[in-house]
Amino acid sequence: MPPAAAPSSGARTLDHPEREAIRLENVLHALSDPMRLAIVRRLAAVEDELSCAVFDLPVSKSTCTHHFRVLREHGVINQIYRGTAKMNALRRADLDDLFPGLLDSVLAAADLEEKRLGGAGT
Amino acid sequence: MPPAAAPSSGARTLDHPEREAIRLENVLHALSDPMRLAIVRRLAAVEDELSCAVFDLPVSKSTCTHHFRVLREHGVINQIYRGTAKMNALRRADLDDLFPGLLDSVLAAADLEEKRLGGAGT
Repeated sequence: MPPAAAPSSGARTLDHPEREAIRLENVLHALSDPMRLAIVRRLAAVEDELSCAVFDLPVSKSTCTHHFRVLREHGVINQIYRGTAKMNALRRADLDDLFPGLLDSVLAAADLEEKRLGGAGT
Repeated sequence: MPPAAAPSSGARTLDHPEREAIRLENVLHALSDPMRLAIVRRLAAVEDELSCAVFDLPVSKSTCTHHFRVLREHGVINQIYRGTAKMNALRRADLDDLFPGLLDSVLAAADLEEKRLGGAGT
C-alpha cells in the first residue's frame, strides 16, 4: 500500500511521500525485490541521479516503470523529469535521517550475498 | 517465493531453509509486514523462544499462522514443536552471520519509527 503522497502539481511532476510519511515497512518492501534492490545498489554506487534509460534491466519497459514507481511511492528514490528524461536519485538523506544505518546495512548485505553466490546475487 | 528447504522428516517437523539458502530479498520481504516485524521485535527483545500462543496479535489464528510460516520459510525464525506447543525463535546467529548488522539496523529503525509515531508504529 503506497503511503500518503503530496498532491501532484501537474502531469510532469511525480508524487513523492514527504519524509515524515516514509514508513519502514514500505522501504523494506521496496527493497525486497531483486530488481529494485539492483536499482538501489546502482544509484547508491554512483551517488548521482541516473536516467531510467541507463538501467539495462532484463524486464519489459512496463515492469521497469513499475519497479521505479514502487521505489518512488515508498520513499526510496526521487524521480524528476529533466526534458524528456526521467531521472532517478536515491533519497539517501531522508532514509539515513529516518533509519540510520539501515540502507548501508542492506547495501552491505547485498554485496556480501553477491560475493557468496559468486556474482549471481543480482 | 519460499527458498529451497530441507525435506521434512515427519509431520511434527517443520521445513526450514539451510543457512546457505537464506536470501536477503526473502528476509526483507519477511520483515516488510508490520505484524511480522512486531513478532521479530518481540523475539529479539526476549532473546528466547516463545510459543505462538503468547503473541496476542489482532488477527485471526490462520493469519497469525501464515505470518509465522512466512518468517520460518524465509529463514528469519526457527519453529519447533515442544509437546503441543509450537515454539518460535529468531535465527539471529544465522542472520548476523549472513548479513552482519542488518537485523540490528532494522530493529533500531523500528524502535525509532515507533517513537517518532508516538507508539503507533507497531
